[in-house]
Amino acid sequence: MKKDFLLTSECARELYHNCAAKLPIVDYHNHLSVADIASDRRFENISQLWIQVDPYKHRAMRILGVSEKYITGDASDYEKFKAWYGCLPRLAGNALFDWSMMEFDKVFDIELHPFTKSAEQVWTEANDKLKDLTATKILEKFDIAYCAPCASLVEDLSLFNKGKGICPSLRGDDIVGVNRSFVKKLEQCIGIEIDSLEVFEKAIQKRLEAFVEAGCKYSDHALDDGFDYVQDDASGSGNVRDTGKNEERFQAVLRGESLSEKDSVCLSSHILKTLAGLYARNGFTMQLHIGAKRSTSTRLREIAGPAGGYAAIGRCVNVKALTDMLDDIEKGEYGLPKTLLFALNPADNAVMSILSGSYSKDGVEAIVSQGPAWWWCDHYQGMWEMLDKLSVYGVMSTFVGMTTDSRSLLSFVRHDYFRRVLCQWIGEKVGKGVLPDDYEILADIVTNMCYRNAAKTIEAL
Amino acid sequence: MKKDFLLTSECARELYHNCAAKLPIVDYHNHLSVADIASDRRFENISQLWIQVDPYKHRAMRILGVSEKYITGDASDYEKFKAWYGCLPRLAGNALFDWSMMEFDKVFDIELHPFTKSAEQVWTEANDKLKDLTATKILEKFDIAYCAPCASLVEDLSLFNKGKGICPSLRGDDIVGVNRSFVKKLEQCIGIEIDSLEVFEKAIQKRLEAFVEAGCKYSDHALDDGFDYVQDDASGSGNVRDTGKNEERFQAVLRGESLSEKDSVCLSSHILKTLAGLYARNGFTMQLHIGAKRSTSTRLREIAGPAGGYAAIGRCVNVKALTDMLDDIEKGEYGLPKTLLFALNPADNAVMSILSGSYSKDGVEAIVSQGPAWWWCDHYQGMWEMLDKLSVYGVMSTFVGMTTDSRSLLSFVRHDYFRRVLCQWIGEKVGKGVLPDDYEILADIVTNMCYRNAAKTIEAL
Amino acid sequence: MKKDFLLTSECARELYHNCAAKLPIVDYHNHLSVADIASDRRFENISQLWIQVDPYKHRAMRILGVSEKYITGDASDYEKFKAWYGCLPRLAGNALFDWSMMEFDKVFDIELHPFTKSAEQVWTEANDKLKDLTATKILEKFDIAYCAPCASLVEDLSLFNKGKGICPSLRGDDIVGVNRSFVKKLEQCIGIEIDSLEVFEKAIQKRLEAFVEAGCKYSDHALDDGFDYVQDDASGSGNVRDTGKNEERFQAVLRGESLSEKDSVCLSSHILKTLAGLYARNGFTMQLHIGAKRSTSTRLREIAGPAGGYAAIGRCVNVKALTDMLDDIEKGEYGLPKTLLFALNPADNAVMSILSGSYSKDGVEAIVSQGPAWWWCDHYQGMWEMLDKLSVYGVMSTFVGMTTDSRSLLSFVRHDYFRRVLCQWIGEKVGKGVLPDDYEILADIVTNMCYRNAAKTIEAL
Repeated sequence: MKKDFLLTSECARELYHNCAAKLPIVDYHNHLSVADIASDRRFENISQLWIQVDPYKHRAMRILGVSEKYITGDASDYEKFKAWYGCLPRLAGNALFDWSMMEFDKVFDIELHPFTKSAEQVWTEANDKLKDLTATKILEKFDIAYCAPCASLVEDLSLFNKGKGICPSLRGDDIVGVNRSFVKKLEQCIGIEIDSLEVFEKAIQKRLEAFVEAGCKYSDHALDDGFDYVQDDASGSGNVRDTGKNEERFQAVLRGESLSEKDSVCLSSHILKTLAGLYARNGFTMQLHIGAKRSTSTRLREIAGPAGGYAAIGRCVNVKALTDMLDDIEKGEYGLPKTLLFALNPADNAVMSILSGSYSKDGVEAIVSQGPAWWWCDHYQGMWEMLDKLSVYGVMSTFVGMTTDSRSLLSFVRHDYFRRVLCQWIGEKVGKGVLPDDYEILADIVTNMCYRNAAKTIEAL
Repeated sequence: MKKDFLLTSECARELYHNCAAKLPIVDYHNHLSVADIASDRRFENISQLWIQVDPYKHRAMRILGVSEKYITGDASDYEKFKAWYGCLPRLAGNALFDWSMMEFDKVFDIELHPFTKSAEQVWTEANDKLKDLTATKILEKFDIAYCAPCASLVEDLSLFNKGKGICPSLRGDDIVGVNRSFVKKLEQCIGIEIDSLEVFEKAIQKRLEAFVEAGCKYSDHALDDGFDYVQDDASGSGNVRDTGKNEERFQAVLRGESLSEKDSVCLSSHILKTLAGLYARNGFTMQLHIGAKRSTSTRLREIAGPAGGYAAIGRCVNVKALTDMLDDIEKGEYGLPKTLLFALNPADNAVMSILSGSYSKDGVEAIVSQGPAWWWCDHYQGMWEMLDKLSVYGVMSTFVGMTTDSRSLLSFVRHDYFRRVLCQWIGEKVGKGVLPDDYEILADIVTNMCYRNAAKTIEAL
Repeated sequence: MKKDFLLTSECARELYHNCAAKLPIVDYHNHLSVADIASDRRFENISQLWIQVDPYKHRAMRILGVSEKYITGDASDYEKFKAWYGCLPRLAGNALFDWSMMEFDKVFDIELHPFTKSAEQVWTEANDKLKDLTATKILEKFDIAYCAPCASLVEDLSLFNKGKGICPSLRGDDIVGVNRSFVKKLEQCIGIEIDSLEVFEKAIQKRLEAFVEAGCKYSDHALDDGFDYVQDDASGSGNVRDTGKNEERFQAVLRGESLSEKDSVCLSSHILKTLAGLYARNGFTMQLHIGAKRSTSTRLREIAGPAGGYAAIGRCVNVKALTDMLDDIEKGEYGLPKTLLFALNPADNAVMSILSGSYSKDGVEAIVSQGPAWWWCDHYQGMWEMLDKLSVYGVMSTFVGMTTDSRSLLSFVRHDYFRRVLCQWIGEKVGKGVLPDDYEILADIVTNMCYRNAAKTIEAL
């Protein structure tokens, strides 16, 4: 890979090489296997490391008509590698092309493009290099200050390693979508019987303390396509208080009953609001991942599981639901936690970035803030558009920075990708007079955006 | 027109001149008059050929305050020509400006801009050249491999000419919005009495066979603003099966009754799902034209008819309805046909392009795929944005290619327009390091996108 | 500030310096204090002129974590100045950075960036210059042909000054959201008792005549997030006519009762439709400000008031409601007034610009037309995107031009900002072959867009 990959102006190159490239990585939310890291897994072959856990690649293979046999089916690891390797030249323009080049360059020192090597040659060569690598050795190739694989509230935290910066990021969706089985697991975690909503909330706080202990500083929630927030459902209920009705709903959950759609939205709204308060209380940053349409092909869900790479982008966000929710959280005892809004629909970027000016907290920058380009948007163009909107609807120097949100140990190259895109973006704006040609100001912004702001969110560690 | 129009980089020029410009045209969906082609119509004057059938131009004239008299009214052809010609300098920036230049250059070898000639001069000169031209002679000026004017299921197909590549593209909206009169026409077409939904569906298949015979490979449906899809309306209906209720609705249609909005959505959802299965069975590609807002000014509708150029762009698409529908089709006996999603609202581009990864079929590239920039989006910027989204949310090399969707014989210049924009777009990405500077890869992509993928969709011919 | 700020091509510089920069300003809608102008206010210090009335700056300070004390609280003017001045380097990329530079350059001849001067130095220097300035002297620094601070229908108009081009722009929201107190005020204005909807409408027309007299040519209405238009609510009401039901609703308003949400939408739809007809009758241009989400943080609303800078961007517009409303207005006795659509959600730009082709009036250019980039979109990128969409979905040469919509006397620099961005935008399009390299055509477009079209809307003065 060329040293100046993606950097076409002097300004971009200077900012990247003298500033961005030198900063440590804070990866505050990902889906890495903490077991792989704890056990220092050794991978049998490149297919297992590079392809097996990466739904992005599975998705691209499906688009190119590759038979499911070679994606999630019973083909051998080598056959799967060949299938994927054969797709690469077709993927020019898609971030998977660039990432693949970067991953092989950084971790294996192998140049893939211009594809002069056969699949067999690359397979052999990469597997050979893999013999000297383990999960932690791969991580060591990147300058990672903090790495946060996500964990459910009821997951075992013993594999995390705060001393080495391997801390949990709390995945909160099963709390909000509470069912009986989850309550049982939580009871086991903390040894308390949960027989009311109030006790449930106390149990959550107790368990959050274990997360705090393990170095957790982030949580995340999915607000999928169709997301709604019911601010108050007391109307029509006579003299029953809002919490009263949610208590009834919670009791139904405890009995293993399923709720109507309306009851479900009311209860989950209440829980999410309460949780957000607890995040504020415990110093967590709350990530809201907004706008996924996860149910598309039933067939692919059955074949590939719930995170199989076939999710789509939902309709533009329900702004009213989002602002009502943030307002309710702000009114709560603990106020708003630092909140990051991730948009999956790029048409929502302006909506997300403007919200940083709609809530505030004395002494805290951007208490509500747009997160980095997320999931299917995590590529050159998605980053570019996010920066475009963030800079004019918000204040770019308050940006909390990139995170990979990935299942693959190789994905840390995406921080480098982001930094190159950011510096190139700045260089272009400077060329047009939109940003001042002032290295001090620009380097300060770059440092904030690539490292310093994220470091602040974990500083209490 | 300059040889390098729109091509500002060496890479763009090389790709265009050495590759894109040399490829034949597959125009898989348009609104040409097949009668004009079959009769080899000779046009009385340039107004009839250039302006009369083109609602895009009517629309632009209205924006510029031209009196309706000179648009659709009783002014003479010459007066109408003058009115339009006078608008041209005002239209700089709008694709109509470029297209007009290209049309006159390609078909009449007349340079319009810098408008040194008077309207009278151009009128005389163009009419003069028109004497030697007919519908087929105009078509021959383009290298057209396949040209598909659309036809309703109940239309006469005898004017099509498969041998010369003039084949029907099925316009399916009257099937989905079935009424008694349509059923009567279909009965006449195939000589079978239609007394149930089941027979209706058999009748459709029988008639589709005539379309297959005539070389039809494409169908299209409009999913306008407000589009909804009702996946299953059995709930609440006790023990009545879904088809049972739609049978009832169909019987009401046969009796000439009009359906409630809800019943109408249920029945049309069912028919569209069934039709899609038949398209898969017959090897058709299904086009979904998504997001038009056709009812705007009642006054203009009365003056200019249903396709009079005053349609608007609807709200962002209802993703849930779309994904539910595609999922249902995939579950059906024949699975998904090759499906092209056309977005009228450019804010939907990412939503459309991501869906190519949400459904799949072994051995078929992009069974669901974004179509080209459509209708009001069919211009430099609309194409550019579509390419931007397609390349990062989908895989650009699977793109099925441009089609004119036009009522005018001159509109084939838009293929040239698309190819220039595509090559320019690629050139710019290469300049930024976003696409590899690798002629072989790029020319392969260009060939796929301008010709090969479209040719594959009609290859069974 | 550099002479060629934002202008990077020869074409852009030529258009700007030879054409755009020389044109007078028509600022057809703003929120200036007409009292300040009439009394020729002298400002005590730079904080009062520059910061106190500008919610954009308050918003940016909140994003940067500045304590509310220094924004709207009880800190001294100097402390507030220091707080804001300290934010400036952090705001690179946001229009507030550029505007601040331009405001100080134009009005005080002080160069802020590269921030070598301390806050105290700038405070002293600017206050010193302020001694020689008054509200009118500041206005005189710009070549303003028409300046329209907005006023409610029931406001005193005596402070306006038609002779000097200081005319009211009618703010119509309290008419549409009519309540008893508003009716009382209107009765006082015109000395007629209002006891029916019919009389209310007559009273409005009578009061509009005073606005006409004062030189008013513009009105504006906010169609906020959640906007709906109920075309006809007669259905279900038996034999009650539509107006009959709205009369009932109006009577309820007169009695001081509050309406249900549905009744409220019906009545406001009716009033807005009627008002639009009156605007057409009186030669007003109607501005529709579409898509604000004004209620976000209850806390900030309580601290900073209804226009405190914390508003957000709403969901994409309800196109059906908008087109139904425009259609109804067109059907009315007076037809459509000249109508400007302002989009707050940039994802709506294409939807807005396409509507200029959906309604028409013989002899009038773009009876419905997209307005300039508005409020949070009023920056380089927002303008750029608006121009992008306007040029391809509409006809850019019909654009009515920039207006500040600002509360600050310094904001007229934004006209200069817009003109630079426009010329730069044109230069870039010419470089790509998208616009013709033809100075005459381009200068004509620039003149239309920066001055001539706006001048036409006020020409009856």
